[in-house]
Amino acid sequence: MALTAEQEAEIAQARAQSVPTRRATVPALEEILFAAIPVLDHGFIRVIDYMGDDAAVVQAARVSYGRGTRKVSEDAGLIRYLMRHRHTTPFEMAEIKYHVKLPIFVARQWIRHRTANVNEYSARYSVLDREFYIPAPEHLAAQSAINRQGRGAVLEGDEAARVLALLRDDAARTYDHYIEMLNEDEAGRVQDEGRQGLARELARMNLTLNTYTQWYWKTDLHNLLHFLSLRADAHAQYEIRAYAEAMLETVKRWVPVTHQAFMDYRMGGVHLSAPGLAILRRMLAGEAVTQESSGLSKREWRELMDALGRPG
Amino acid sequence: MALTAEQEAEIAQARAQSVPTRRATVPALEEILFAAIPVLDHGFIRVIDYMGDDAAVVQAARVSYGRGTRKVSEDAGLIRYLMRHRHTTPFEMAEIKYHVKLPIFVARQWIRHRTANVNEYSARYSVLDREFYIPAPEHLAAQSAINRQGRGAVLEGDEAARVLALLRDDAARTYDHYIEMLNEDEAGRVQDEGRQGLARELARMNLTLNTYTQWYWKTDLHNLLHFLSLRADAHAQYEIRAYAEAMLETVKRWVPVTHQAFMDYRMGGVHLSAPGLAILRRMLAGEAVTQESSGLSKREWRELMDALGRPG
Amino acid sequence: MALTAEQEAEIAQARAQSVPTRRATVPALEEILFAAIPVLDHGFIRVIDYMGDDAAVVQAARVSYGRGTRKVSEDAGLIRYLMRHRHTTPFEMAEIKYHVKLPIFVARQWIRHRTANVNEYSARYSVLDREFYIPAPEHLAAQSAINRQGRGAVLEGDEAARVLALLRDDAARTYDHYIEMLNEDEAGRVQDEGRQGLARELARMNLTLNTYTQWYWKTDLHNLLHFLSLRADAHAQYEIRAYAEAMLETVKRWVPVTHQAFMDYRMGGVHLSAPGLAILRRMLAGEAVTQESSGLSKREWRELMDALGRPG
Amino acid sequence: MALTAEQEAEIAQARAQSVPTRRATVPALEEILFAAIPVLDHGFIRVIDYMGDDAAVVQAARVSYGRGTRKVSEDAGLIRYLMRHRHTTPFEMAEIKYHVKLPIFVARQWIRHRTANVNEYSARYSVLDREFYIPAPEHLAAQSAINRQGRGAVLEGDEAARVLALLRDDAARTYDHYIEMLNEDEAGRVQDEGRQGLARELARMNLTLNTYTQWYWKTDLHNLLHFLSLRADAHAQYEIRAYAEAMLETVKRWVPVTHQAFMDYRMGGVHLSAPGLAILRRMLAGEAVTQESSGLSKREWRELMDALGRPG
Repeated sequence: MALTAEQEAEIAQARAQSVPTRRATVPALEEILFAAIPVLDHGFIRVIDYMGDDAAVVQAARVSYGRGTRKVSEDAGLIRYLMRHRHTTPFEMAEIKYHVKLPIFVARQWIRHRTANVNEYSARYSVLDREFYIPAPEHLAAQSAINRQGRGAVLEGDEAARVLALLRDDAARTYDHYIEMLNEDEAGRVQDEGRQGLARELARMNLTLNTYTQWYWKTDLHNLLHFLSLRADAHAQYEIRAYAEAMLETVKRWVPVTHQAFMDYRMGGVHLSAPGLAILRRMLAGEAVTQESSGLSKREWRELMDALGRPG
Repeated sequence: MALTAEQEAEIAQARAQSVPTRRATVPALEEILFAAIPVLDHGFIRVIDYMGDDAAVVQAARVSYGRGTRKVSEDAGLIRYLMRHRHTTPFEMAEIKYHVKLPIFVARQWIRHRTANVNEYSARYSVLDREFYIPAPEHLAAQSAINRQGRGAVLEGDEAARVLALLRDDAARTYDHYIEMLNEDEAGRVQDEGRQGLARELARMNLTLNTYTQWYWKTDLHNLLHFLSLRADAHAQYEIRAYAEAMLETVKRWVPVTHQAFMDYRMGGVHLSAPGLAILRRMLAGEAVTQESSGLSKREWRELMDALGRPG
Repeated sequence: MALTAEQEAEIAQARAQSVPTRRATVPALEEILFAAIPVLDHGFIRVIDYMGDDAAVVQAARVSYGRGTRKVSEDAGLIRYLMRHRHTTPFEMAEIKYHVKLPIFVARQWIRHRTANVNEYSARYSVLDREFYIPAPEHLAAQSAINRQGRGAVLEGDEAARVLALLRDDAARTYDHYIEMLNEDEAGRVQDEGRQGLARELARMNLTLNTYTQWYWKTDLHNLLHFLSLRADAHAQYEIRAYAEAMLETVKRWVPVTHQAFMDYRMGGVHLSAPGLAILRRMLAGEAVTQESSGLSKREWRELMDALGRPG
Repeated sequence: MALTAEQEAEIAQARAQSVPTRRATVPALEEILFAAIPVLDHGFIRVIDYMGDDAAVVQAARVSYGRGTRKVSEDAGLIRYLMRHRHTTPFEMAEIKYHVKLPIFVARQWIRHRTANVNEYSARYSVLDREFYIPAPEHLAAQSAINRQGRGAVLEGDEAARVLALLRDDAARTYDHYIEMLNEDEAGRVQDEGRQGLARELARMNLTLNTYTQWYWKTDLHNLLHFLSLRADAHAQYEIRAYAEAMLETVKRWVPVTHQAFMDYRMGGVHLSAPGLAILRRMLAGEAVTQESSGLSKREWRELMDALGRPG
């Protein structure tokens, strides 16, 4: 991540201002407000604004006239109860807004979460920066042999070098041609007075999917947690998980009680099917159940044993 | 509207607090934060929280690093351009949360707007207050003779008196029976130790639709304006319009530039159809178009003449 | 449920028509298409239209050119995999539309599910039927003493009789007054030429919440299953559960493979928290864990033992 | 567009089937069901399924028991009234599903419409086809000099040739390297046994934004029309407009009455602001209003004169 001096100055100026408010305010989140938290090689997330705190969840659940909070332990108990029993609407009453810089192929996964507000930097209107995501060597994973939608071991040696060279060269070349077709540089200066320049909305099609874009993204706490439960999960692609993990840290600052409940009941939990539950009860009753006697398919049996942390 | 002393105290306490924040803050809205603004006979709206201001719209449209604002006139020009051309996503980047007390039949119209977050006071869990909406005499309208979905002249004399008496008596009687069936009063005190009391989730079915309920309602600025364009409109039922008009005043305090653009381009504007536009062009060219020569149906012709403020 | 002869004839006429289509068609669902399935005392659900079948889920998951289906067992395996791993978007590719007659207090719970399309019968425009929900004696439950949002034992004797009488009388009286204020009967005939009649949009406020309304309600299979997982659940209020259970039967006819996967992985399953899972692993390893040694609160411990079907 | 023989056969097979249904069926749409309608150089749209017809809009608006339709002219009048007065919910009661092949940069614009269901071909899981969008010479537009988000004249001569060559070469080269990094061809055959191959989810980042992807996309009639009003509009980028125009033709087959109302009241219409309307009334009263005497900014004045088809 390399912010320009001008961008750094804009952020510093925004951070320097402080005014009084009657609204619910969270000092631990204010501390990092506007600051760019690096993700991947050139990306970042920045918390731009927020509404509400842990108490706002309680207040909405109680439809109260004042702050609506009681003893700390009672409020925490209510939040944990709501999370455990999937009473989701009170968590919709807090809102957060991020500024995110991210590779286009990550943006394409991210945007599938529809319950959010988005303003993306427009490549119809402006010229994109010369920044591409190139995986660090330890993330240059081979295709998984057993899971069509997964990664295997890390590439090494010549193959790794060749891949990195291809990614770098192709991104650089297609970007240079993008600028050439536009006939203007990143700052919008015309290159060759004798040419017209291709329309920006067309020239952008020459860019590769690891080019960085950026957007403002705003959502409520419930939908944010749903997003994070999927994208901070081990099955998510590493690149979007890197963003989700950075965001999870901001959630911890913002709504620590909700964050803890989320880690206990959602992230670290497991869903057992009706047949799985029946088997579990047999096991607790002392029966030595095997895949054969379980009635489950091999795949489901393995998933169940994995969930229970047993050799299978 | 009659808040209890306890409610007044809770609100006063919330209003008394002030802490520093780095967030965009709007003094004119802070001034009324948490305060109950009366609507109808026992209802109110209260602004509970907000995120963003006019500048947040500009900032999102520009995907900027800092506040993103320039000269005041330039920012206003951008907001007006976005409103005029229905670029709606930047207006989704500001958010507001209300606490509303409203009759159930109004709540049923309101909830049809799905792009909002809602937490309603639960009559499965709690006992509702003894408050019903009774129209003021000047709003006791007869059924319109020409519009099946509209109001005609105001009822007067005996008919008005009879209607008001029926509304009052039925609401009071059904509420009293609700309390009797519950076997507990508004404060939850058991009435008759010899009875069990009907489940709250069942007893509520005896209440009339003018009973007041309350909820927390949160939405973004774009969807709020869409709601207001429909519900502050002359075709909306008076009772929900009363809420919309009170909310429109809070929008004016919150985002004055957006509010003005909204009044100019949405509330005061008119949509002309393709055939209507063709007729208008003929009129501007000097032709004396009549309904017969217009090709429009009588109804559409009347709607067009109304829009143009002409006798028809 | 009492349909008028005219309504019966309209339904029979619609059912009599049959035309050829190239679309995915489900004979078992066609069999009951348009037919009114009774729910509660005067309500019903009717399947009005549908799009897709089990194969449509498979087809969307594979983004295929043709039907996209392979061997029956392979398709079922894919559907079960998608359900188990919460890959929800393929289930959004099938759609269903219901006509529902239901008490207003049930409609108010139902409408909280926002991801659906709704057209409700308008009491601003038309006169509502003289039909109210009166619970059958076996559903006249007392308030639960231990759960503020629940039902206890069934009321009996004098208390039950008194409650039923109150519900019946109040609904009838407020409806009669509604008609009197309107000055027109259910068929729209003016009663007293000397009166104007209160506007329909106002008169309706005198009705009680057990009055029946009706609507067209359309949603996709994923959101329908989410609705059913909450409303066919034992914690749902009996009255809405009655609708959910009737709808679940239509799902079984429509998409039998998806229905079975739903019953196995969602309805009959259980979610274990991270701390709960840790305790379970200790139990499977042979440890005799107690509430005290579990680290869980009493409430969470009881919930976990309930889930595992153990005495606690 | 070049479908493989296998894809053609799958489509032909699906089209050959016909079964009876009781559902609302539209022969004119059935005629083209499943058939690929070419868009751009390699793209297409295919109607995969639909629910409802013009009568379904009427039926929902009337919440009727049977088909709900009356005389053709009466039904058309109701549909036109609903469209004119933006009563949008009845149009949500019809649904359509498309299979679309489109360049990724078009997909990125399209996906911003959130009220739809989407299943995209997964490049985490599968290998993308070797197909890129290359604009036809007549669509190779220069950047507009006056509108930052628009196109100017068409590029010609050397500049056009150079742009086309760059687009072709870069897409081909990055695709070849994609295949090389994957170490498998489009059909999934391993290339070099001595290499592991980069994970598919990573290799895809080397592709350019004009690479074709495909998805199933399903939405209701109201949201489809909203999409088309923005994307079949003259201000939309040509490439997405090409899709919107092809879809508009399918709407015409599907719901001809709704389509005509949409063309009259939405596509061909114009929205006048409150100040614009005031000026129009002055003009109709015979006053010769100029920009100076109008009170409008130059930009707004020009927009108004354009809308009214006047020289300005």
